[in-house]
Amino acid sequence: MNIESLQNSFFKIRSNRAFEFFVVGVILFSALVIGAKTYDIPEHVLTIIAWMDRAITAFFLIEITIRFIGEPNKKTFFKNPWNIFDTLIVVVSLIPIQDSEMALIGRLIRIFRVLRMVSIVPELRLLLNSLIKALPQLGYVILLMFIIFYIYAAIGASFFVHINEDLWGDIAIAMLTLFRVMTFEDWTDVMYETMAVYPLSWLYYLTFIFLTTFAFLNMVIGIVVNVMENEHAEEAKEKALAEGQLTIEDLSKQIDELKQMIKDKA
Amino acid sequence: MNIESLQNSFFKIRSNRAFEFFVVGVILFSALVIGAKTYDIPEHVLTIIAWMDRAITAFFLIEITIRFIGEPNKKTFFKNPWNIFDTLIVVVSLIPIQDSEMALIGRLIRIFRVLRMVSIVPELRLLLNSLIKALPQLGYVILLMFIIFYIYAAIGASFFVHINEDLWGDIAIAMLTLFRVMTFEDWTDVMYETMAVYPLSWLYYLTFIFLTTFAFLNMVIGIVVNVMENEHAEEAKEKALAEGQLTIEDLSKQIDELKQMIKDKA
Amino acid sequence: MNIESLQNSFFKIRSNRAFEFFVVGVILFSALVIGAKTYDIPEHVLTIIAWMDRAITAFFLIEITIRFIGEPNKKTFFKNPWNIFDTLIVVVSLIPIQDSEMALIGRLIRIFRVLRMVSIVPELRLLLNSLIKALPQLGYVILLMFIIFYIYAAIGASFFVHINEDLWGDIAIAMLTLFRVMTFEDWTDVMYETMAVYPLSWLYYLTFIFLTTFAFLNMVIGIVVNVMENEHAEEAKEKALAEGQLTIEDLSKQIDELKQMIKDKA
Amino acid sequence: MNIESLQNSFFKIRSNRAFEFFVVGVILFSALVIGAKTYDIPEHVLTIIAWMDRAITAFFLIEITIRFIGEPNKKTFFKNPWNIFDTLIVVVSLIPIQDSEMALIGRLIRIFRVLRMVSIVPELRLLLNSLIKALPQLGYVILLMFIIFYIYAAIGASFFVHINEDLWGDIAIAMLTLFRVMTFEDWTDVMYETMAVYPLSWLYYLTFIFLTTFAFLNMVIGIVVNVMENEHAEEAKEKALAEGQLTIEDLSKQIDELKQMIKDKA
Repeated sequence: MNIESLQNSFFKIRSNRAFEFFVVGVILFSALVIGAKTYDIPEHVLTIIAWMDRAITAFFLIEITIRFIGEPNKKTFFKNPWNIFDTLIVVVSLIPIQDSEMALIGRLIRIFRVLRMVSIVPELRLLLNSLIKALPQLGYVILLMFIIFYIYAAIGASFFVHINEDLWGDIAIAMLTLFRVMTFEDWTDVMYETMAVYPLSWLYYLTFIFLTTFAFLNMVIGIVVNVMENEHAEEAKEKALAEGQLTIEDLSKQIDELKQMIKDKA
Repeated sequence: MNIESLQNSFFKIRSNRAFEFFVVGVILFSALVIGAKTYDIPEHVLTIIAWMDRAITAFFLIEITIRFIGEPNKKTFFKNPWNIFDTLIVVVSLIPIQDSEMALIGRLIRIFRVLRMVSIVPELRLLLNSLIKALPQLGYVILLMFIIFYIYAAIGASFFVHINEDLWGDIAIAMLTLFRVMTFEDWTDVMYETMAVYPLSWLYYLTFIFLTTFAFLNMVIGIVVNVMENEHAEEAKEKALAEGQLTIEDLSKQIDELKQMIKDKA
Repeated sequence: MNIESLQNSFFKIRSNRAFEFFVVGVILFSALVIGAKTYDIPEHVLTIIAWMDRAITAFFLIEITIRFIGEPNKKTFFKNPWNIFDTLIVVVSLIPIQDSEMALIGRLIRIFRVLRMVSIVPELRLLLNSLIKALPQLGYVILLMFIIFYIYAAIGASFFVHINEDLWGDIAIAMLTLFRVMTFEDWTDVMYETMAVYPLSWLYYLTFIFLTTFAFLNMVIGIVVNVMENEHAEEAKEKALAEGQLTIEDLSKQIDELKQMIKDKA
Repeated sequence: MNIESLQNSFFKIRSNRAFEFFVVGVILFSALVIGAKTYDIPEHVLTIIAWMDRAITAFFLIEITIRFIGEPNKKTFFKNPWNIFDTLIVVVSLIPIQDSEMALIGRLIRIFRVLRMVSIVPELRLLLNSLIKALPQLGYVILLMFIIFYIYAAIGASFFVHINEDLWGDIAIAMLTLFRVMTFEDWTDVMYETMAVYPLSWLYYLTFIFLTTFAFLNMVIGIVVNVMENEHAEEAKEKALAEGQLTIEDLSKQIDELKQMIKDKA
């Protein structure tokens, strides 16, 4: 009985709008603390910040506990990936870190706290979910692009390695160089260098640019068409509902009834 | 009576097409004067330009007065943000400026006079309004992008600060550097520098580019879909009006009436 | 009678498919001659090319004469802007050019002969016409962009002129620099230079980039929506024609006739 | 009889899902081998890799033989361009290569084996086919762009050749330089150089950028509209099928029958 009433009262806190805003406030504050640490600040301010950091960690621990206890069905709590993400961030930041190597990872975890913003604000969660949902549909285009990159990188690493080791050293470096070419970042410098040895190598770069630009365009258009269609489908559904589902079929049935009436009378 | 007739005659001037064109002409002329001042011009021409400047200020003062007196309902005048903008520009340019610090602000105000073009030409006003209206819809995407920037900047400012203070000095500088990376401006120089220390830091840049490009794309598609839908909705409305709102429902009612008629007769 | 039969036979030549292909061939050949002249070629080949050039000029003169004589209605000939363009190119290339200054213009005219390709191939003419037709619709967006450029250039030329004369010397140079910033071409170099004097000048660049990118995007979306709508309108028209224009209104009338029939019988 | 049963059993192997996955696995493995060769590897690993290479070649030969023998109709086998591509890759990699010049081509052939991925995975084949199908529709836009490039390159090679031989040496080099300008890669460096001699040459670059950007945009929009329309057409077809093709015309006929019935009764 006691536990149940506790759960109920915690569920109320959880659903409280003021509590939500307070949590968002603490996340924003923790983001500011992270930002402040990147500036040159005197020693005593650093100590204050370290204490603030601990206070934020403690608050997040309490908050996640309230959320968990407030959950009516404990099993569903860890089915929500956002809850897992939140718990992970909180738990990892509890581990005391001494040596410098791990300190960097500790700092990283603190930075990822800002992402809790996304897990708290429903609109951002929705937005990110729709972004993630769009990815697998593009899987084959991404695979095709990877094949293009791999083939061109293999050619580049085979033929241009003697020209510039830093750009064409191995297939991984060559892929990075090709990504650079795709973003048009000083790509002519890369080209002129190889053209001095292979005068026809401009063909390599131009075909690569055409192929990747074309594939990228196709990907973008794929997303646009997909989003549009979903919108259209939803619109059509809403329209049908608004119209009370009355269609040409319904009219046809009404006219059939009329015919029957006339026949019956005859 | 006298004031009212004055208001009426000023209202006529205000609505006069020739007056409109004259005001546009003065704004264009003031823009040319501003442009001319950026060239090396002899002293005596500068004096002429200074006098022209005063004449333009005087004209704008008269014009805004005509507009205000010509307004039938004085209260609505300052409800229009464009009127407030116009009045502000004119009033501030009336303040005499002597010291050099303020002189720069005075010059700025004179440059912003060109924006009066937008407040005068209705088509431009419409265009700007539609641009401003599109912004809040994208609010959450912009917030998400800011979060991405903030997290990456925090990581960059924590790990890369010892490599290059000018690029990763603090979180604000790091965000500017990341914006530079997003525009692909010499981004490989930034990457190669950090890769010399952290060989895996290309992951940092590539994930950042993918995330921001993807979010930006989503934003653009959001605008396109939105604009399209509004257009479609308007078209559908117009079509419905043109068709005299006759729908399948209307037909259904007509058939029902028919049935009633046959029943009545039976 | 004689002239008329001449016109008829020339009209036949004009409409001849083989003649068309031959003209396209000559244009292609003249394009190749222009290209060949940019290479280092021995003296005697140059003489051959000079003779070819004269032959092409002569052929184009004959061709345009055939077209003109073959035209049934002489007045409509010069109403077609492509005919005027063709005639101009031919006439100007007839003027003998001796001094070197004019020689450059003569060369330019020869290069523009390649554009005759567009005036001959109907599909290209259609494409170019549609491109030109799309321009005026975008007039106000272009005007707005020009105003943004002008204001930012005036600010830049006023404040940054002492930092770098080559980039901010006067309003025209500043506008060119801003166009460079808009294409993201080494824009951070420009920004870092001014940030050394005015640390907040990044605001100037970032707002400029946001405004112009946003306006450009709006322009692109404007074209897309416009093209789409035209397509939809045409589709709807075709569909209506295919369906024999039978609408809900027609059905309504039919039902009304039914009612009348029942009434009459009663 | 014997041959036929062989064909049948090979057809079964061919259609076997496990066989498909095994072939994909071998292709992936051959891609890894190609990638591995770009790294600095000890001599004895190279020997192993050389043996693996031969094994892969042998496997591909067997696989293509199975495919060919398994094909019920031998004539259709070489009508499929993917089969021709596969056979070519396998046959060419069988040719023993000794001298170094040909060794490069041998390596290239081995790299192109990765493309067999596309010929095996049906989704990738579909994607590539749709990409190739989209190309000819854009033929005239590409032709127009080539004409723009050619004219500007001819002008550039005529006027700027004395300023920089490396950029404007002949019409081919000038076209490469213009492609560089179109990708905004250090284009201002190219422009500032010619502006030192011809102060108005910025007009040349700006008009070129506007024309090519505009044409490119038109091309992209062309693809979008085309893809959209195809999608719409398919949707409309599906909808019509789902509704059992019941249209306003059907209703009209029903009402006509009603009229007839009433008339008959009268």
